[in-house]
Amino acid sequence: MSAIENSKLAIIGAGAVGTSLAYASLIRQSAREVVLYDINEPKVEAEVLDLAHGTQFTGASCVSGGADLDMISDANMVVITAGARQHPGQSRLEMSGVNVGILRELMPKLIKRAPDAVYMIVTNPCDILTYAALHFSGLPSSRVFGSGTVLDSSRLRWLLAHRVGVAIANVHATIVGEHGDSEFPLWSQARVGPISLDQWVADDISPVTNGREKFSEAEFAAITEDVKTAAYRVIAGKGATNYAIGLSGARIVEAVLRDEGAVLPISSVLTDYRGVSNVALSVPTVVNAEGVSRVIEVPFSESEQALFQHSADTLRATLDTLGLK
Amino acid sequence: MSAIENSKLAIIGAGAVGTSLAYASLIRQSAREVVLYDINEPKVEAEVLDLAHGTQFTGASCVSGGADLDMISDANMVVITAGARQHPGQSRLEMSGVNVGILRELMPKLIKRAPDAVYMIVTNPCDILTYAALHFSGLPSSRVFGSGTVLDSSRLRWLLAHRVGVAIANVHATIVGEHGDSEFPLWSQARVGPISLDQWVADDISPVTNGREKFSEAEFAAITEDVKTAAYRVIAGKGATNYAIGLSGARIVEAVLRDEGAVLPISSVLTDYRGVSNVALSVPTVVNAEGVSRVIEVPFSESEQALFQHSADTLRATLDTLGLK
Amino acid sequence: MSAIENSKLAIIGAGAVGTSLAYASLIRQSAREVVLYDINEPKVEAEVLDLAHGTQFTGASCVSGGADLDMISDANMVVITAGARQHPGQSRLEMSGVNVGILRELMPKLIKRAPDAVYMIVTNPCDILTYAALHFSGLPSSRVFGSGTVLDSSRLRWLLAHRVGVAIANVHATIVGEHGDSEFPLWSQARVGPISLDQWVADDISPVTNGREKFSEAEFAAITEDVKTAAYRVIAGKGATNYAIGLSGARIVEAVLRDEGAVLPISSVLTDYRGVSNVALSVPTVVNAEGVSRVIEVPFSESEQALFQHSADTLRATLDTLGLK
Amino acid sequence: MSAIENSKLAIIGAGAVGTSLAYASLIRQSAREVVLYDINEPKVEAEVLDLAHGTQFTGASCVSGGADLDMISDANMVVITAGARQHPGQSRLEMSGVNVGILRELMPKLIKRAPDAVYMIVTNPCDILTYAALHFSGLPSSRVFGSGTVLDSSRLRWLLAHRVGVAIANVHATIVGEHGDSEFPLWSQARVGPISLDQWVADDISPVTNGREKFSEAEFAAITEDVKTAAYRVIAGKGATNYAIGLSGARIVEAVLRDEGAVLPISSVLTDYRGVSNVALSVPTVVNAEGVSRVIEVPFSESEQALFQHSADTLRATLDTLGLK
Ligand SMILES: NC(=O)c1ccc[n+]([C@@H]2O[C@H](COP(=O)([O-])OP(=O)(O)OC[C@H]3O[C@@H](n4cnc5c(N)ncnc54)[C@H](O)[C@@H]3O)[C@@H](O)[C@H]2O)c1
Ligand SMILES: NC(=O)c1ccc[n+]([C@@H]2O[C@H](COP(=O)([O-])OP(=O)(O)OC[C@H]3O[C@@H](n4cnc5c(N)ncnc54)[C@H](O)[C@@H]3O)[C@@H](O)[C@H]2O)c1
Ligand SMILES: NC(=O)c1ccc[n+]([C@@H]2O[C@H](COP(=O)([O-])OP(=O)(O)OC[C@H]3O[C@@H](n4cnc5c(N)ncnc54)[C@H](O)[C@@H]3O)[C@@H](O)[C@H]2O)c1
Ligand SMILES: NC(=O)c1ccc[n+]([C@@H]2O[C@H](COP(=O)([O-])OP(=O)(O)OC[C@H]3O[C@@H](n4cnc5c(N)ncnc54)[C@H](O)[C@@H]3O)[C@@H](O)[C@H]2O)c1
Repeated sequence: MSAIENSKLAIIGAGAVGTSLAYASLIRQSAREVVLYDINEPKVEAEVLDLAHGTQFTGASCVSGGADLDMISDANMVVITAGARQHPGQSRLEMSGVNVGILRELMPKLIKRAPDAVYMIVTNPCDILTYAALHFSGLPSSRVFGSGTVLDSSRLRWLLAHRVGVAIANVHATIVGEHGDSEFPLWSQARVGPISLDQWVADDISPVTNGREKFSEAEFAAITEDVKTAAYRVIAGKGATNYAIGLSGARIVEAVLRDEGAVLPISSVLTDYRGVSNVALSVPTVVNAEGVSRVIEVPFSESEQALFQHSADTLRATLDTLGLK
Repeated sequence: MSAIENSKLAIIGAGAVGTSLAYASLIRQSAREVVLYDINEPKVEAEVLDLAHGTQFTGASCVSGGADLDMISDANMVVITAGARQHPGQSRLEMSGVNVGILRELMPKLIKRAPDAVYMIVTNPCDILTYAALHFSGLPSSRVFGSGTVLDSSRLRWLLAHRVGVAIANVHATIVGEHGDSEFPLWSQARVGPISLDQWVADDISPVTNGREKFSEAEFAAITEDVKTAAYRVIAGKGATNYAIGLSGARIVEAVLRDEGAVLPISSVLTDYRGVSNVALSVPTVVNAEGVSRVIEVPFSESEQALFQHSADTLRATLDTLGLK
Repeated sequence: MSAIENSKLAIIGAGAVGTSLAYASLIRQSAREVVLYDINEPKVEAEVLDLAHGTQFTGASCVSGGADLDMISDANMVVITAGARQHPGQSRLEMSGVNVGILRELMPKLIKRAPDAVYMIVTNPCDILTYAALHFSGLPSSRVFGSGTVLDSSRLRWLLAHRVGVAIANVHATIVGEHGDSEFPLWSQARVGPISLDQWVADDISPVTNGREKFSEAEFAAITEDVKTAAYRVIAGKGATNYAIGLSGARIVEAVLRDEGAVLPISSVLTDYRGVSNVALSVPTVVNAEGVSRVIEVPFSESEQALFQHSADTLRATLDTLGLK
Repeated sequence: MSAIENSKLAIIGAGAVGTSLAYASLIRQSAREVVLYDINEPKVEAEVLDLAHGTQFTGASCVSGGADLDMISDANMVVITAGARQHPGQSRLEMSGVNVGILRELMPKLIKRAPDAVYMIVTNPCDILTYAALHFSGLPSSRVFGSGTVLDSSRLRWLLAHRVGVAIANVHATIVGEHGDSEFPLWSQARVGPISLDQWVADDISPVTNGREKFSEAEFAAITEDVKTAAYRVIAGKGATNYAIGLSGARIVEAVLRDEGAVLPISSVLTDYRGVSNVALSVPTVVNAEGVSRVIEVPFSESEQALFQHSADTLRATLDTLGLK
């Protein structure tokens, strides 16, 4: 063994998201080597320097990068954050055209240099772009996916953990569908520790919940709304979202580079999943060194099935508009 | 602030279990300071030295200890592993008498020195001894619990993770009841990622499971048996079990010292839980800096309710025999 | 124990530096609880949300905050990043006036709410502000210090590690003096693993250095210059520096909250250190739960002594100008 | 990428040392996959089970193993702990014959199955066995080394850290030579943070050291003696040493599998190092994915040179006796 083999993470785009994802990956040691690429040379060089200056505190993980694409050669995983960010008020789907164009040019160049990598799309609209990237790459569909609703699910879990008063690690709840306005929580499968969310506090007076009853429909609706509008509120207050997506992305990177078989709601092009095909959106997926190892067929309630179909239709319509058949 | 406050973990008993738990706690930095106590002075001093010699590699965590009980003063958590270990062929309940006697003498001395600590019993039979320790301590019941079936549940999850081919972190399954022969898995609540265990592979052909069907009743029964006999097999092969309980114990310690609110199947004295009172056994429990923050009322199937009652009856009978009303 | 005690880190200022420091602290679990405060309410609320949305991936660490200063009550450590950032071309000392004014108002309010905390100043010019903060606080000098040259030393180590081809953890080199233009590396004490830096490659042909000789004076001078101008270059390229200071700050936080006794070049008000008194600048310092536990009297070469005195004089002059006697 | 490549650690020998090393490696996630092998089938199977039962708490790291050597195939690193342990009173060199015999048989079988691995010898006498293993393997000398005095140096640092009152991470001191009675600390290069150990407390009154003076010759001698006899004392008290060597070994594994370039005092066959050739003993060494990347030529004082030569002569004599030219 003259060198280690599963070490190299390339991040395309050194904006707020790409650098936060690099930072989180370095601190968590998600990869041994992080390479950052951007077309904006002064920017990417400054970001690499700033990240590198902290590597005394990141164990064996190190960072390099610049505006020369050859630096990503032989990456084991490539994460794409390049593109326009979401402006205040702008819907995720509205950003599509420009970013599809960037991918059309970028993917062949990336695949030439990192032909064996697993590719993850973070740039928005990430479901549309995942479809586009797969299309432009010619890779097997397991090797191209989007970060999807991992972030949205983390937002949901944080809200629920506060509401029920247990550790966030013990709140199991998932957002599926589009990473965008048509997404929805799979309430039928949500759990707190060993019990179903809708049974929580059913027969128990906890000091935390002060005798409150079960979750009401209104609360479920309010929480759903809160998650769906979270990005808009963060963008309104600080102009972008970056920290939470940085951590979510780093976590998915680990699932791949450590060959974990972790279950995460990432976005991949589906084939006959609950009747949906030829569109990328998020469902619980087993993620390992191959990328998408398996999508899990979750039981949907009737209304969930309708919401899922609606989300797929929305995305398919956009793909059609963009000429992505 | 002249010193940190949630730092001190005292471990009573420097045998195979106590030292493994200390080792895991140091490596994971579960506590800032680990103190090991045992009546066997040469043994405990050698163990402390051996552990201390590795602390170059354990961050800020450090270890000390010996045969002087005053070293545990002001511990924030006390873990009791002292006592006779389980001999090959011996049932867990058969060890009771001797170990109850040890606790009767030990608890008052511990509480005098660490009056505000949370107490965890690991020594077997840990449910019986948890009851006894609470009894001898006069503490509120939230502050005395047993490591219970956290270990058994970890064994179950490991078996299931291999069987289904996903990361162990995404297998949610719990053993409840006695830490011993009458324990049982809560199959009705077991999940793989977002779906119920009995739906796994229902409508999906995974490469991992090669077209196999859903779990059969026979498989569930075989896995249950495997978990229940695991300790016996380990003891037959190596004379003790220590590594897995060391990690399980360190994990519970973290839930307390980091005030996590983690959901873990620890053993505490129950009051009208599914009809069971005045006996300690394991159910899913929210664990934080107070110890037992709340027991979670899990829905039981009819057969689970019967098994649970049987487990409680078994333990109550032993307690009666031992004169612990 | 009804709650954990060494858990609470308050960060004042939710700009690029404060939020990066919060992010790094959450990911590294440097504190159990991070509270972010800023006068800019929409901004700080958005930053807290974005950070909180990632806490599914940060273990037990959690974050809250806003524009209400009462949220920092009883913090164990307070890190101050509030203030104007360094503009391109601006020297660190030029920012002084405004930021001294902010501290004059802020310190009494902070101390009222967190009277037992250890205070760290990150805002620039950090040596001047450390002096000012101590002055305005009335606290013992051990409890108020600046992040100093921990960041600059990390930059130096990164450069050296690349040059010599060993892990950054084995490069021991320190920048002392002002966090600013008059700072300098203590070359006389710099080491690679067990040997003095100026002996590296003395009698050895390494593949990494390809037969190159010892470090030359010119190389030492170039590296010094590189470190001293690093911040300017990063600011020119990206408008601020935040990631490396975020990690450096989180590392210092750990030294305090874990009561480590770590040796770090932080900035504190010195009393007769190598002839220097009544000015704050960085020298190797033992940092623990009390803050500054001890400054270490490092042997200086003659030229190092002159540089150190010059650095102190520069800072003293600024303090005088600002009326801080 | 269909699988990760730097993941597999094989440990030969499932005794106290091999299992502790496996446990530490799992907890620290030093390797993705740990395989344990031993000729004692019931023992190794029980140890693997016990370790596996804890893997719910070890992230992505997993363990398997048994008495079938084929399980180690394609390991990236092989650590050898098989053999007779040191009995109370027995010198490390007295164990040689038997263990050389085991290696003679084992090495070819291992290399057939893991031809590209880096090999580390932990079994004692580890310097003798490192020489023998290299001899029997036909591998380049960079790919076979002994754990050497990493453990002994950790013992030294722990003693010094307590004596000076700073974090162990800031105490830089190294034991070199034989892992055994002729070893010695390189006092001339020992440091506390940025200063030489013999200057510590020179001009400073610390609360920790209560006005004590510099280290005296007598103290240096006592500490040296303490380190050299530590193993004997641990073995007298508990029958073996395992925890500290487990952590030391895991740390070295990381240096290799993460391609760190870490400086560690491992034992390798030297060629004209300070006049010593054709014998394996420990000196500060840069360790990366190739194994021994470079030995560092440390300046020795005159007495250190004499001690080093003596240590080499002692080992050479044993090698001669054993017929290992
Ligand atoms: N999927 C999610 O959950 C999620 C969350 C947050 C943000 N995002 C998306 O991530 C993207 C990036 O956001 P940001 O805040 O980092 O934006 P940003 O504007 O800060 O950074 C984008 C970077 O991409 C670079 N870039 C543009 N074209 C490029 C090309 N052809 N090659 C290389 N680099 C190129 C730009 O120079 C810029 O540095 C946006 O599309 C945003 O909507 C997604
Ligand atoms: N709850 C679980 O899941 C679990 C798992 C494994 C083992 N165990 C139990 O843990 C206990 C310890 O097992 P072990 O393998 O470490 O046994 P061991 O024999 O190796 O160690 C027990 C130690 O307790 C010490 N001791 C005895 N009386 C003492 C006293 N009054 N004060 C202090 N120390 C005292 C002994 O000197 C000995 O060192 C056993 O009861 C075993 O059955 C529990
Ligand atoms: N010491 C170092 O090594 C180091 C390194 C980098 C940056 N810095 C310094 O850190 C400081 C912050 O830099 P930044 O990039 O985060 O700047 P920034 O402008 O992004 O953020 C500063 C924040 O402080 C807030 N603020 C201003 N007055 C306040 C008050 N009275 N109370 C609370 N909050 C207040 C502002 O609203 C703003 O959000 C600057 O002084 C910069 O020079 C120091
Ligand atoms: N280098 C160090 O710093 C250091 C420190 C501690 C111990 N050690 C040494 O480590 C070795 C192991 O110590 P231990 O306490 O684990 O001993 P142990 O007796 O507990 O275990 C040794 C194991 O090796 C197995 N074994 C014997 N021959 C084998 C073969 N041919 N193939 C596979 N397995 C075989 C045995 O079955 C046994 O399980 C001893 O030589 C000891 O001196 C070295």
